[in-house]
Amino acid sequence: NSNMELSFAERAALARNPTAKNLFEIMELKATNLCVSVDVTTKEKLLWIANQVGPFICMLKTHVDILEDYDSELTAALSKIASTHNFLLFEDRKFADIGNTLKYQYGGGIYKIVQWADMVNCHLVGGSTSVASLREVGLPFGRGLLVLAEMSTVDTRTGKDTISASLSIASTYPDFVVGFISQGRIASDSPHLLHCTPGVNLSTTSDGKGQNYNTPDVVVKRGTDVVIVGRGIIEAPDVVEAAKMYRDCSWKAYLERLHGKK
Amino acid sequence: NSNMELSFAERAALARNPTAKNLFEIMELKATNLCVSVDVTTKEKLLWIANQVGPFICMLKTHVDILEDYDSELTAALSKIASTHNFLLFEDRKFADIGNTLKYQYGGGIYKIVQWADMVNCHLVGGSTSVASLREVGLPFGRGLLVLAEMSTVDTRTGKDTISASLSIASTYPDFVVGFISQGRIASDSPHLLHCTPGVNLSTTSDGKGQNYNTPDVVVKRGTDVVIVGRGIIEAPDVVEAAKMYRDCSWKAYLERLHGKK
Repeated sequence: NSNMELSFAERAALARNPTAKNLFEIMELKATNLCVSVDVTTKEKLLWIANQVGPFICMLKTHVDILEDYDSELTAALSKIASTHNFLLFEDRKFADIGNTLKYQYGGGIYKIVQWADMVNCHLVGGSTSVASLREVGLPFGRGLLVLAEMSTVDTRTGKDTISASLSIASTYPDFVVGFISQGRIASDSPHLLHCTPGVNLSTTSDGKGQNYNTPDVVVKRGTDVVIVGRGIIEAPDVVEAAKMYRDCSWKAYLERLHGKK
Repeated sequence: NSNMELSFAERAALARNPTAKNLFEIMELKATNLCVSVDVTTKEKLLWIANQVGPFICMLKTHVDILEDYDSELTAALSKIASTHNFLLFEDRKFADIGNTLKYQYGGGIYKIVQWADMVNCHLVGGSTSVASLREVGLPFGRGLLVLAEMSTVDTRTGKDTISASLSIASTYPDFVVGFISQGRIASDSPHLLHCTPGVNLSTTSDGKGQNYNTPDVVVKRGTDVVIVGRGIIEAPDVVEAAKMYRDCSWKAYLERLHGKK
């Protein structure tokens, strides 16, 4: 199967959604498949980290609903940083409601997520109608959706059923579903789809609150494209050095996978 | 099994959580098992409806993240109305993240949900550690958690597995898990637990976005305690008359169930 492995540049050409295409291109151009997850509670900290790690990442993952001082200027400032350093914004909202509510949660409220987040994700618990409703909001903006196929917690209830439902919805809406949150590759014959894996850390195996960690090399060799690192970088003594280190080993693992080295 | 049916007053005495006890007592005192779901996008509309339906409900269900003009004064005003009319506030947040993130989403951000919402709900997709993390935040406030055991959408992926996981987590954390979002009774031998059912409407069977509707009589006879009505009331020409009508038929169904009439 390693003979079939395509580069991010080749996969950009196969993308069926503008955001997915953009992400593949950024990864190739900047030589990074690192996404930093910035779970901080103030705007100042979020913007500072975004600026520090910006040169080394393809995407920044946010939880805007944990910011104590959120306002609309935050997303404007964040978008500017993303534009300067050429990375995408991924709001880790984990949508999980019925279609009618999702449309307001994605497009409205004070966060107006669709207006600034290139990428969002959703659980499939509400069924395919939830993806259809998000798509109605996101498609006019060219946004992409990552379906939560697998979680990294110790006793997650995602299983084989969730994976097969995720694959199915990705083929139903190829113009909007750009890939998956998973622990490795689940769609082996669909190079246009992205596999993104959170819970990556070089030095820890658990957070004591149910989160399990894996190294970048392990998840990339399992077929992951985008390596999502949170506390391993943002709680490091030197955020820039940590981002470089995670970028380097994630990219090295990608190149080894690409060239058939296990 | 109808011989075993206890009144809300009797169940208040069995409650293992202060919010659950409070809700059973309000239901008995005000003779209402109606919860109104207020999915509106402005503070003014939300507060107006809360005041109109207040006398006829035991609980008000909100989605604060779809309000375009949310600020902290909103929750203060809402709490005041809830206190005046004696009903509880249920933020339909559908938490669905890992434990570390949930603690910030429930206790922090600009919504500070734990500070004003008597009740919240969560999906079990992240596993039992997600409930444990929410409990750490909610317990000091005496709050209650409803576990999403069944959804009302046409192709929901909640099934028997989700129901049994929901029952299990309710017995693990009886001081915090006060019941379920379900389509009817799932815990037949646990009268301290509440069953709350959304997707109730007298005149419609679907919303065209995946939502299926049932009547109050159908869900109460299936063992539901709290009947959650949204568009059937808030989009009615006369909100007060609609609330009264839904209150009356939901309470009548409860009394018939209590007295063994099918």
